[in-house]
Amino acid sequence: MSADNEAEAQEKLIDLAAEFYDQFERGDIPEMSVPTRTKSNIVFDEDENVWVYGDRESTRSANSVRGARKLLKAIYTIEFLSEQLEADRSSTLRELYYLSESWDVNEAQFSSQDESNQLVEDLEIVSEVTREDFHMRPEESGATIMGPLHLREQTRRGEREIHCQKDVGEGGYQIPNNPDTIEFLDHDADFVLCVETGGMRDRLVENGFDEEYNTIVVHLKGQPARATRRITKRLHDELDLPVTVFTDGDPWSYRIFGSVAYGSIKSAHLSEYLATPEAQFIGIQPEDIVEYDLPTDPLSDSDVNALESELEDPRFQTDYWEEQIEIQLDIEKKSEQQSLASHGLDFVTETYLPERLEAMGVL
Amino acid sequence: MSADNEAEAQEKLIDLAAEFYDQFERGDIPEMSVPTRTKSNIVFDEDENVWVYGDRESTRSANSVRGARKLLKAIYTIEFLSEQLEADRSSTLRELYYLSESWDVNEAQFSSQDESNQLVEDLEIVSEVTREDFHMRPEESGATIMGPLHLREQTRRGEREIHCQKDVGEGGYQIPNNPDTIEFLDHDADFVLCVETGGMRDRLVENGFDEEYNTIVVHLKGQPARATRRITKRLHDELDLPVTVFTDGDPWSYRIFGSVAYGSIKSAHLSEYLATPEAQFIGIQPEDIVEYDLPTDPLSDSDVNALESELEDPRFQTDYWEEQIEIQLDIEKKSEQQSLASHGLDFVTETYLPERLEAMGVL
Repeated sequence: MSADNEAEAQEKLIDLAAEFYDQFERGDIPEMSVPTRTKSNIVFDEDENVWVYGDRESTRSANSVRGARKLLKAIYTIEFLSEQLEADRSSTLRELYYLSESWDVNEAQFSSQDESNQLVEDLEIVSEVTREDFHMRPEESGATIMGPLHLREQTRRGEREIHCQKDVGEGGYQIPNNPDTIEFLDHDADFVLCVETGGMRDRLVENGFDEEYNTIVVHLKGQPARATRRITKRLHDELDLPVTVFTDGDPWSYRIFGSVAYGSIKSAHLSEYLATPEAQFIGIQPEDIVEYDLPTDPLSDSDVNALESELEDPRFQTDYWEEQIEIQLDIEKKSEQQSLASHGLDFVTETYLPERLEAMGVL
Repeated sequence: MSADNEAEAQEKLIDLAAEFYDQFERGDIPEMSVPTRTKSNIVFDEDENVWVYGDRESTRSANSVRGARKLLKAIYTIEFLSEQLEADRSSTLRELYYLSESWDVNEAQFSSQDESNQLVEDLEIVSEVTREDFHMRPEESGATIMGPLHLREQTRRGEREIHCQKDVGEGGYQIPNNPDTIEFLDHDADFVLCVETGGMRDRLVENGFDEEYNTIVVHLKGQPARATRRITKRLHDELDLPVTVFTDGDPWSYRIFGSVAYGSIKSAHLSEYLATPEAQFIGIQPEDIVEYDLPTDPLSDSDVNALESELEDPRFQTDYWEEQIEIQLDIEKKSEQQSLASHGLDFVTETYLPERLEAMGVL
């Protein structure tokens, strides 16, 4: 992130606080409005091709003691974040929660980490500055990359130039918490392949798939961290690479695809920053379970509920997903991506992925 | 891992299979004995200073259909592993489970992944070869290292020389699944600091603790993977570095320390390979909660049960742990390591860790 971003983030935070002063001055009761963050309040943005929040808003107003406390906490947090940016420091969401215990006004201290997490999200939405630009780090770390990509990372200790095949061990390149510190220097890639599980990621690397198919393999590590989604989007947008997503064949994994492609309900204000609407789902598709005769487990009740909930989720209301989900509800089975090993350890790299990528028009 | 290891692993596997033939030839019913893997069957090995399995054994014998099937599965697995070593391939435990579906005898196929996992552990114990030397990879990946350490990793794509501060981004060096592919070239470290949470690991790196105190910071990522414990032990044994462990102050985190220092019950056959008995616990100690006036949460019922269970665990029966656990049961509170932020973001690196490391004789 550039110093420009930091200065701008600081300015926008201070603008928020200034707005409270203006409201006081006008004789208004200070308040802050944020979009309602529920599934029923996300709408499709035709221009950006992502799902964003709709028009419904919740207002935090100082017209009640509870509302006034929320605004007080916001002011203290704004001050902390602004000082943090000034000093070029950063902190985790959990540290912010604990740090509030040192604040001089007891009423401004957070009573739970949920409260401080939510406030930071509110500030992100209202200020239109990302948490990363506030220098707030997540608890969970980003995942890894392996592929023909040469990059430069700006670290606190200076610049590091790293080739994500030649300069890393078998574990790959560890994505930093804020991937906007990365500049792409050069690459020899034809597409990006995001992989859900570590076992499959290791299989692709062992089989040399990234070398043979000029693929940047991004390990999602289950539900991907923001850093992982952000760098995936940047690989697509800046390097003009197709992005494909390879997960288990069950409703929880379709949500993983959804969070890469469409953004999540919790962070719909960040869809433009995190989502890659052009991302394509490789599989495991329900029809693959039948076609490739994969080992399966029966759907549990919660699997069925999750599939039915996806049918009603606006992000999954496409012909493709409706057909796949109907197939799965019909066959009542799910398969893991590693179940491809039932046809041998090379089946995934020699048969399944090439066939799917060709069908999708990526190869 | 060297080719020697691979040849030796293969030989030991084939010896196991040959033993079944010998039993047949002698007119004996084939059987395989493995130590009983429960808390009541681990004993302290005075020579190696680690906890290992005691004398109690369970026998898998072909004198029942169930037992005969277990041995059949063992034979098929031995053949697979031996071929895998021959071809210099590797696979995950989950792949092995699915791969068994391609075996020609239905009776040899695993009915659940628990069954294949347990068999591989049995084979480890009986053959005295580690899973890594069978080329079996875990699902979970190792964590990261940041510190003044220069190493060489032998990858499938050739050797990689990496300095764990100068050649890596802020995310650090990703530990490979089998850290015995690593050779330590040079270092400038005074001690190793293993850290439970990502938030604290990032705090130490941001504050430059690894540079200021010549520390190799190993991120444990919760309960550490085998790869993480193995490299920690090697840093201790080969570089003669003190190992310290910094976790949250609750019974689950003491188990994390325990698995680094004493080994786990599940893998007591590997204690000599994975455990670092000289590892010291930094904290958060229950007495620190009082002394540093840290923000706390009340102990839950399951916390209390876990503490009481630790008092009866042979690995925790030392004066130190009995005292600390008694303090915690008495104050009825626990604290996270990030709660040190209640005294400011630099308190952990400027005050807490230097004080604790001095008290422990590490600094």
